[in-house]
Amino acid sequence: MIIKRDLETCFSPALYEPERHAGSIVVVIDILRATSAICTAFENGAESIIPVATVPEARKYKEKGFLVAAERDGYVLDFADFGNSPFNFTPDRVAGKTIVYSTTNGTGIIKIASDAGFIIIGSFLNISAVISWISKQEKDVVLFCAGWKNRFNLEDTICAGAFAERLISTSLYNTVCDSTHAALDLWSLAKNDTMGYLEKAAQRSRLRDKKLDDCIPFCLTMDYTLKIPVLRNGILVSMDL
Amino acid sequence: MIIKRDLETCFSPALYEPERHAGSIVVVIDILRATSAICTAFENGAESIIPVATVPEARKYKEKGFLVAAERDGYVLDFADFGNSPFNFTPDRVAGKTIVYSTTNGTGIIKIASDAGFIIIGSFLNISAVISWISKQEKDVVLFCAGWKNRFNLEDTICAGAFAERLISTSLYNTVCDSTHAALDLWSLAKNDTMGYLEKAAQRSRLRDKKLDDCIPFCLTMDYTLKIPVLRNGILVSMDL
Repeated sequence: MIIKRDLETCFSPALYEPERHAGSIVVVIDILRATSAICTAFENGAESIIPVATVPEARKYKEKGFLVAAERDGYVLDFADFGNSPFNFTPDRVAGKTIVYSTTNGTGIIKIASDAGFIIIGSFLNISAVISWISKQEKDVVLFCAGWKNRFNLEDTICAGAFAERLISTSLYNTVCDSTHAALDLWSLAKNDTMGYLEKAAQRSRLRDKKLDDCIPFCLTMDYTLKIPVLRNGILVSMDL
Repeated sequence: MIIKRDLETCFSPALYEPERHAGSIVVVIDILRATSAICTAFENGAESIIPVATVPEARKYKEKGFLVAAERDGYVLDFADFGNSPFNFTPDRVAGKTIVYSTTNGTGIIKIASDAGFIIIGSFLNISAVISWISKQEKDVVLFCAGWKNRFNLEDTICAGAFAERLISTSLYNTVCDSTHAALDLWSLAKNDTMGYLEKAAQRSRLRDKKLDDCIPFCLTMDYTLKIPVLRNGILVSMDL
């Protein structure tokens, strides 16, 4: 008899239980836009990314000469080289570089999860690569949605649902987690038209209002990259399949 | 132009923001089984219910001679008169009485929300009465799901979705809250067969394992009562329409 691995979903940093997830693979999901941008950076040749939770930390790195990508609520911080759109992380800017990265939600939750066995960066852009890698590990999995300022959000939840659907279809995972069932159900409603489904999402309106929504169709694209960003000693590096 | 009132949903006590909701009507939802039991108690003639968050508080009330309903994880506390099933709150036990009530999730969140303008107890059992009363107030509304030990749960979420559907259909409410949209979508999947939908819910299995699931069909019944339990000075009393 095969003992199935456990699959859970966490909708917000406020709901994360570090002690329960200490041995798990944690997939951090913040698709609009942090984790999509991180995946893009590695596809475009970035060597490593240092996630920092606070603005003062990011500023210190800038003073030391690092390339810094940093935003709060969609606005690029004044000292940063650029902000949070995946389109900023072009090969000419990032290839071979170490980037210091700080965002409203996504980089903070990497710190919150840092006691877990493995922290992986997930998005639609690298979903198949992540699923393939995870399936080869003998580990429980937590899909950790960044949400927005501790609140539940739709975009990360449907992405978690897409991950859950793929993991459960391997027959290696089981879930008794209501959040995972909800994510699966919402994904079932969204999957045929993710862009249309997210019209009602609060982040959709926020990004539109700030004219930062040009990257949304890209962020909803599956399998743009095979790169799997993984946290090692506090720094994100790319793990190829 | 009518300014629409704001409708939000909160999936867990860990996500509740007391300062933002100070002026709102908060509808506490813990359908399996606390808020269904409270609605049943008032329908059967209870005069008032004192919700207490902790076991020692409940024990003190028992020592003073109060009728005490108290459970943790489905088990009746040894000093209590009875537990958390709505079927316990029969007219012969509760008519004309004040009941002290303490449960795993539901009664604690009543305390958490106690700074709000109005705290109402909601369940499928009194949904039409609550919607009718709320619609006559000029207030924002928060649907506050008890969840389970701070986690999201499906049963309270679909009930919140049912409340949200009814409130939005009055054209008096607007929502820009992703949790409300998710609740509405999950309710759209559940509404034609709520009992079947909840087969996958963790609380469904918990109650089945403890042979406490006999009350679930009753808890999913709409409009068993017109009573609206409301918190006044820390005590729940019944407000008729």
